[in-house]
Amino acid sequence: MRISNFFPCNDDKLNKLLLWTAEIDKMTHILRHTLLVDASRRENDAEHSWHIAVMALLFSEYAESAINVGHAVKMLVVHDLIEIYAGDTFAFDKNGNKTKKIREKDAADKLFSELPNDIGKEIRTLWEEFEEMQTNDAKYANCMDRLQPFLHNTLTDGHTWKEANATVEMVEKRTHIIKEFMPKVYKWIDDNIKNAVKIGWIRE
Amino acid sequence: MRISNFFPCNDDKLNKLLLWTAEIDKMTHILRHTLLVDASRRENDAEHSWHIAVMALLFSEYAESAINVGHAVKMLVVHDLIEIYAGDTFAFDKNGNKTKKIREKDAADKLFSELPNDIGKEIRTLWEEFEEMQTNDAKYANCMDRLQPFLHNTLTDGHTWKEANATVEMVEKRTHIIKEFMPKVYKWIDDNIKNAVKIGWIRE
Repeated sequence: MRISNFFPCNDDKLNKLLLWTAEIDKMTHILRHTLLVDASRRENDAEHSWHIAVMALLFSEYAESAINVGHAVKMLVVHDLIEIYAGDTFAFDKNGNKTKKIREKDAADKLFSELPNDIGKEIRTLWEEFEEMQTNDAKYANCMDRLQPFLHNTLTDGHTWKEANATVEMVEKRTHIIKEFMPKVYKWIDDNIKNAVKIGWIRE
Repeated sequence: MRISNFFPCNDDKLNKLLLWTAEIDKMTHILRHTLLVDASRRENDAEHSWHIAVMALLFSEYAESAINVGHAVKMLVVHDLIEIYAGDTFAFDKNGNKTKKIREKDAADKLFSELPNDIGKEIRTLWEEFEEMQTNDAKYANCMDRLQPFLHNTLTDGHTWKEANATVEMVEKRTHIIKEFMPKVYKWIDDNIKNAVKIGWIRE
């Protein structure tokens, strides 16, 4: 993290927080494979994180358990930050996903240590809760993270499914948490998987 | 809102929520005047909303009152949605700001009525709380919304200040809520205003 033109004040903690704020702006340059809804270009991590955070305000009544939406939203806005150093790993990239855990842990060590200790710990705890997917809020947040690219795929001619030559099994695995935690939403997913197979966007 | 290629299920409320999710993806096409930190291009509303939402997780100890950070983050991710129909109004555009309130109210009527009633009301209430700036959480959220473009300006050679031919008075007015609600952060703002005047980015 080097921001050479930053003009600091005499509060070191505040300077650190402002510099980190500048650092995470790099999320705008990390491209995902998913296209924007109008298919004009690939979305970036900042856009994706914002989009699923708003979604968390919409779908909570479809969750199997009561959700602390504010807490889920906090997780969602930070869940991809480690990609600043680890890069985006395509959901359907087998090899990339083998090394994902190690790469992302190293990235987390680097990124969160750039924050003041107390706040670095808080953000890391949110990220870990999201990754471990054990709490209801984390399950719900993960559902949003899977539902949004699925929706975009249905609206962009199955873009990333075709790119990955995806099978029903791969897509079902990716959306399994929705089946478990938001079964009524999964009904829509399931209808759309069947439709995508019929059209030829997903292989049987 | 017309998404012609959406494949619906038999749950009308869910269909409505998914279509609205697709609709708000338009935030990625609404450009602000602020540049990204690396000055490579203007940021869009989705990126800005995400960025200040993360900031809300960092700066709460500098607020004059205790903050419900989760609630502030919820406000921040929806506070600019009405710009999908009202467009972005440049902070330093006097004429645009005269008609801003009416344009944004019309946009809110349209945008929030596209949601199921109960959820439309919830999101509108969050937006109104942000706009009215009376609660501590709303004051804090507004501080994030002012601090981020200020920071970007300091890192991009005063870009929007120069574009607007801004005076100290204009910038102080814009950051007044930070002076009131986050005085220690305002100390950094004040140092940077003085520095920007010296360099010639802001007029006396």
